[in-house]
Amino acid sequence: MALLMEHQFKQLPADKQVETRSFLESVSYLPPFFDCLGSTVFAPIKADIVGNITTIKAVFDSNPSRFKTLQKILEAEKELHGADWPKVGATLALMWLKRGLRFIQVLLQSLVDGEKDENNPDLIRVNCTKAYELALKKYHGWLVQKLFKAAVFAAPYKADFLKALSKGRKVKEEDCLDKIRQFLVNFTAANDAIYEMYTKMNAELEYTV
Amino acid sequence: MALLMEHQFKQLPADKQVETRSFLESVSYLPPFFDCLGSTVFAPIKADIVGNITTIKAVFDSNPSRFKTLQKILEAEKELHGADWPKVGATLALMWLKRGLRFIQVLLQSLVDGEKDENNPDLIRVNCTKAYELALKKYHGWLVQKLFKAAVFAAPYKADFLKALSKGRKVKEEDCLDKIRQFLVNFTAANDAIYEMYTKMNAELEYTV
Ligand SMILES: CCCCCCCCCCCCC/C=C/[C@@H](O)[C@H](CO[C@@H]1O[C@H](CO)[C@H](O)[C@H](OS(=O)(=O)O)[C@H]1O)NC(=O)CCCCCCCCCCC
Ligand SMILES: CCCCCCCCCCCCC/C=C/[C@@H](O)[C@H](CO[C@@H]1O[C@H](CO)[C@H](O)[C@H](OS(=O)(=O)O)[C@H]1O)NC(=O)CCCCCCCCCCC
Repeated sequence: MALLMEHQFKQLPADKQVETRSFLESVSYLPPFFDCLGSTVFAPIKADIVGNITTIKAVFDSNPSRFKTLQKILEAEKELHGADWPKVGATLALMWLKRGLRFIQVLLQSLVDGEKDENNPDLIRVNCTKAYELALKKYHGWLVQKLFKAAVFAAPYKADFLKALSKGRKVKEEDCLDKIRQFLVNFTAANDAIYEMYTKMNAELEYTV
Repeated sequence: MALLMEHQFKQLPADKQVETRSFLESVSYLPPFFDCLGSTVFAPIKADIVGNITTIKAVFDSNPSRFKTLQKILEAEKELHGADWPKVGATLALMWLKRGLRFIQVLLQSLVDGEKDENNPDLIRVNCTKAYELALKKYHGWLVQKLFKAAVFAAPYKADFLKALSKGRKVKEEDCLDKIRQFLVNFTAANDAIYEMYTKMNAELEYTV
């Protein structure tokens, strides 16, 4: 689990404000997560997430002190873009990014919880499918849902996935799962806070792609 | 057919050498072709092709007079990269690009030849499938083949596709098909010449993705 553990998310402060700079730094280490899935088929997904991060970073870099927290970005863009908001700018990018993060979070949580297909205990398809259903399915039309169903067959064996997450080092599965558990604490808290912010600010959209 | 007709490929000279500069200019107008297919699902395909063009252009721009024709690029890279060649540089990018171009070529040819599914004469799925089988299928593993099968359902109606190719202008279907026929002459000749060059130089690879 070296890949993720070396770049933990920061602990959320009491006011639940996510700092933009450290958030961007932490998420920038996540796209290689999709390389761990092993197939080039996942390259477009990785590209989509990298695009989200790039969009948010560009806004942040335009005025780092003004955009100290993610909420400041949403507030400023709401003001700036009027009727186009929230389907615009970093607000839109973060709306999608958080769904990708939730996919990763639910997938990892399901693995550490030991959820498995008893007939195929070495596979992670059930865990991917659960993550997809909770994080993304409702924002995808029938075609992308169909593509997901095909793509999930390219998901690696659990052992290979855990090994890839450990950067190919030989680590005991239990040790790896422990590290994932640790990683999930701040990661889940940060992502939950972002979801809450979207609800509170009425920034969530339900359209499908 | 405004989209393609405004940017015809140059006629091939007698020695069948494709000039890099005008080739790059002509292909740079092709990526929007995938927008005409209508669904965002095709965005990763468009991105792959744009990537190929960018790779070739970067090599060309590094020394335009040296890389006057596509063949000069392959020869120089063969010399430069030794055992890594041809799975490298602009040679690799053009290897894949020509397959995408062949897909477009066979699809358009099949449309102007009036090939259709008698039970679904308004659809272009049979034409897409034919183009896929001739141009790409053998270079794709079972998973990407499966994704293609799902993606082809997102292909637009024939009338909508032709309209999109005409940049949304109202043109008679017959006029549009005529323009496609004209476009195909030089386009097919250039692409055939590129395929021949890959065979002659032993630069073709059969690996699947
Ligand atoms: C020849 C063969 C034919 C092949 C057929 C090709 C098929 C290709 C299908 C590719 C689908 C790739 C997934 C990307 C889907 C994207 O469409 C969506 C929305 O994407 C958002 O759209 C916004 C505008 O509406 C903005 O542009 C956002 O961009 S902005 O930054 O500009 O604001 C952008 O992220 N993102 C998503 O759904 C997010 C996806 C996250 C996925 C997480 C994990 C899933 C893992 C699965 C593992 C088993
Ligand atoms: C959450 C939901 C889950 C969604 C699941 C996501 C699934 C995404 C699957 C995406 C497949 C996209 C197609 C791209 C496939 C590409 O893998 C291949 C090889 O691509 C080449 O690879 C080389 C290295 O081997 C170099 O990197 C080349 O790059 S280099 O420039 O660096 O040298 C690169 O082009 N290109 C291809 O097969 C070319 C494809 C052309 C396609 C033409 C038309 C097909 C149209 C179909 C219309 C009905």
